[in-house]
Amino acid sequence: MTEPLSKDYALTDLTALFGGEVIGDASIRISRIASLDSAQTGDLTFITSARYQAELEKTRASAVILSPQLVDATAAARIVCDNPYAYYARVCALLNPPHRYPVGVHERAQVSTTARIADSVSVGPGAMIDDDADIGADVRIGAGCYVGRGVRIGAGTLLHANVTIYDRCVIGERGIVHSGAVIGADGFGMAMDQGQWLKIPQIGRVVIGADVEVGANTTIDRGALDDTVIEDDVKLDNQVQIGHNCHIGEHTAIAGCVGIAGSARIGRYCRIGGAAMIHGHIEIADNVEVSGGTLVPNSINKAGKYTAVFPMSEHRDWIINASLTRRLRDLRDRIRALESRRADEDK
Amino acid sequence: MTEPLSKDYALTDLTALFGGEVIGDASIRISRIASLDSAQTGDLTFITSARYQAELEKTRASAVILSPQLVDATAAARIVCDNPYAYYARVCALLNPPHRYPVGVHERAQVSTTARIADSVSVGPGAMIDDDADIGADVRIGAGCYVGRGVRIGAGTLLHANVTIYDRCVIGERGIVHSGAVIGADGFGMAMDQGQWLKIPQIGRVVIGADVEVGANTTIDRGALDDTVIEDDVKLDNQVQIGHNCHIGEHTAIAGCVGIAGSARIGRYCRIGGAAMIHGHIEIADNVEVSGGTLVPNSINKAGKYTAVFPMSEHRDWIINASLTRRLRDLRDRIRALESRRADEDK
Amino acid sequence: MTEPLSKDYALTDLTALFGGEVIGDASIRISRIASLDSAQTGDLTFITSARYQAELEKTRASAVILSPQLVDATAAARIVCDNPYAYYARVCALLNPPHRYPVGVHERAQVSTTARIADSVSVGPGAMIDDDADIGADVRIGAGCYVGRGVRIGAGTLLHANVTIYDRCVIGERGIVHSGAVIGADGFGMAMDQGQWLKIPQIGRVVIGADVEVGANTTIDRGALDDTVIEDDVKLDNQVQIGHNCHIGEHTAIAGCVGIAGSARIGRYCRIGGAAMIHGHIEIADNVEVSGGTLVPNSINKAGKYTAVFPMSEHRDWIINASLTRRLRDLRDRIRALESRRADEDK
Repeated sequence: MTEPLSKDYALTDLTALFGGEVIGDASIRISRIASLDSAQTGDLTFITSARYQAELEKTRASAVILSPQLVDATAAARIVCDNPYAYYARVCALLNPPHRYPVGVHERAQVSTTARIADSVSVGPGAMIDDDADIGADVRIGAGCYVGRGVRIGAGTLLHANVTIYDRCVIGERGIVHSGAVIGADGFGMAMDQGQWLKIPQIGRVVIGADVEVGANTTIDRGALDDTVIEDDVKLDNQVQIGHNCHIGEHTAIAGCVGIAGSARIGRYCRIGGAAMIHGHIEIADNVEVSGGTLVPNSINKAGKYTAVFPMSEHRDWIINASLTRRLRDLRDRIRALESRRADEDK
Repeated sequence: MTEPLSKDYALTDLTALFGGEVIGDASIRISRIASLDSAQTGDLTFITSARYQAELEKTRASAVILSPQLVDATAAARIVCDNPYAYYARVCALLNPPHRYPVGVHERAQVSTTARIADSVSVGPGAMIDDDADIGADVRIGAGCYVGRGVRIGAGTLLHANVTIYDRCVIGERGIVHSGAVIGADGFGMAMDQGQWLKIPQIGRVVIGADVEVGANTTIDRGALDDTVIEDDVKLDNQVQIGHNCHIGEHTAIAGCVGIAGSARIGRYCRIGGAAMIHGHIEIADNVEVSGGTLVPNSINKAGKYTAVFPMSEHRDWIINASLTRRLRDLRDRIRALESRRADEDK
Repeated sequence: MTEPLSKDYALTDLTALFGGEVIGDASIRISRIASLDSAQTGDLTFITSARYQAELEKTRASAVILSPQLVDATAAARIVCDNPYAYYARVCALLNPPHRYPVGVHERAQVSTTARIADSVSVGPGAMIDDDADIGADVRIGAGCYVGRGVRIGAGTLLHANVTIYDRCVIGERGIVHSGAVIGADGFGMAMDQGQWLKIPQIGRVVIGADVEVGANTTIDRGALDDTVIEDDVKLDNQVQIGHNCHIGEHTAIAGCVGIAGSARIGRYCRIGGAAMIHGHIEIADNVEVSGGTLVPNSINKAGKYTAVFPMSEHRDWIINASLTRRLRDLRDRIRALESRRADEDK
């Protein structure tokens, strides 16, 4: 539940800021945005698909953001716009401005004398900024973060509490890194040598573009020799693992628990579903969608949607189907035998 | 190995505390509980299934917790009770009391002047408790934790070291949160707008009930508008990911590496196996068991066990079966052709 | 990109240190090692497989590490050796020596008066070393780490920032633990008792051998009664989860996002692919390879490669094949019916 905020807006204030058209009582003032279900009188809500029309009819909201297609679906005051979901995002951000962190270095933070810190930076207690780091304007370093030697962080980026950035990594402007994320740990590289593993130094970096969001407890490994690269506007959910030397193209969104093995190259505007797993050393084209839980074993050269998931059943049915799956060769051979008899008859 | 403790108990001390009946030498005193395999003379052990009877015969333990069904399976001193596993849990807790943390705020912790902290709270070094947080009696905040603005933590809850709780989240009484857990990070919400991702502010909270355990490096995202809710007595293992606006019912247990996408609603007394993946916006009934590794793509309305796992084979067999799985349509069509010939003959 | 280093070496310096034979201009001096693609004049590169011969022909590197089989594949100066990948690892380590952390306890670290700390230890700011811990020579404890009561860490081990080690766990010599790793959290053990979960105290430890690397945000749970054991030279990638009482044999390598349920016992020299999932209470023999994404439901008694992955298709093809997989019983029954007709005819 959002806390009530004192500041409120007339619907016409919103269309003045964000476009769209008001239909109905334009003088209504709102201070809160809420889902169709939980909205109360005085709230603004939104609908993104005709599927939710039943909820729209029951909502108590005083005004609704909707598309031209649904303009007649309610008698409430409306803001009509092309992309109600994006409109909601903008209004929600207006009504819920981000927290303003105190400018300056907390007395319990530790900043190296060789680090360069813009005046407007905010550093929380227990944070450590190591030698030669370079922190841009308006950056927030949360409590307990570690920012390694020579790290560069672009203006306006927010590191929540307890983030770790290893030496020499680069994060672009306006990024958000959530707690527990680890950027720049060593890639998983070793050579077997006379029965023992020999560590391969991981001397590349992680280089992250602008407007990238990194989820909680996500890990992005530094490159072995070259860099691991995350391009602008990539969005990573929680507990994503990105191996060394991967390259993720602009605007690609990767859902939670996805693993991407080393040296995979993923295109632009891809969407990778939760818990998918991408093999190493493969390429995925632009605009590819990978379904949740899918293992991608080889390159995908063509835009489209790809899936690899065993279908769910009740366990007793699964036992039979799994057993038949493991013996598909037998089924094929039995079909072949029947076909061969037919062929004999047809001679 | 548990360290030897000075305090020991006669078997009758245990039955006085926890019920059950002693058979054999009731004067035996024990100070340690151990598994069938590793128990030594002087130790108490336990058996939970007739499957382990061979180990029972070989154990060196001086006394055994067992069920009435196994009462004759050993000549050692016995405590007979209905639920030996729960009995073991109670004796083990008696013999291994939790560490008593020093009461008070460590001089190297940082507590906001507007936070409310019960006198009996223990705050470790490097922890940060932010503005307006409200921390109940006997809570322990481990070293390096970050507790955000307005967070409420119920009496008796233990946060191990390096836990992060974002602003306004709520944790109930007697909870345990393991290291690296992140509670209340932003849900993965964004709208595509003219080729760029637009962040949707995540202004809901995470609200966790009483007696909940949260595993190491588990992440629970805050809701977009409404709250993410974890009910009483839910148990989450390590590296679980729970998306925004999920609702997990009482007493449900979720094993390691499980991912639950946004707005999923899981019932009471469910058991979700390790590395299972639950799609978003679905409902799972009470008392559902999901097998490890299963992807749940749709709602489950009926109690029972559900599975979706490709069966394991040696790799060379798998290649053939996987290839046939991908061409099941061909097999079906060949069966159809044979059937069609039969049908022609039967005319 | 590695930063240019002042120190350079003649090829003969390298063969003097690491063996192998120089062919071509032995006086060439190199200060940097780089991949075939990104190497510049003055750099050393390496080739590990004939597959990369096309890249070898285009490389700008001044010298190449290669095997006797590829000795004629380039006219550049060469170091010929039996294991070019291991040779590269050694040269890379020589050219990129690890960072030397300042010896001593940072004034903002917290070390218990009862902890034993070798003189040569380095402890970063915000780290906490608790009572009775025992830290060997040349250990580095990174910023923000928590080292629990009675923990023992062997000589030469490196804990990166924000690592958490619970009480009484043991880490051997020359280990590396990456940020966010949690070693020794409670295993997932509880007994259902009258409709409520009862926690089973987890009083075993995690005992880790020498030369073990633990990836970022990896979690290893302590044993319930006995210990969780990780033997020497085991390599764990990021976001691996190891349940209580597991036993991982020497030299086994486990890739990212793998989950291993409680009491699994994995042999020596195994390789577990990314996002594989191992069931609890099973045994895996030495030299077993498990493919990425594979769920291992039962013990594997024989060395070899094992796989269990649904094959990927375009989504519209997958829908058909998944649907047929779920109804394999029907296909089998239709084959049976056809066979039965044949059998009747053959009578």
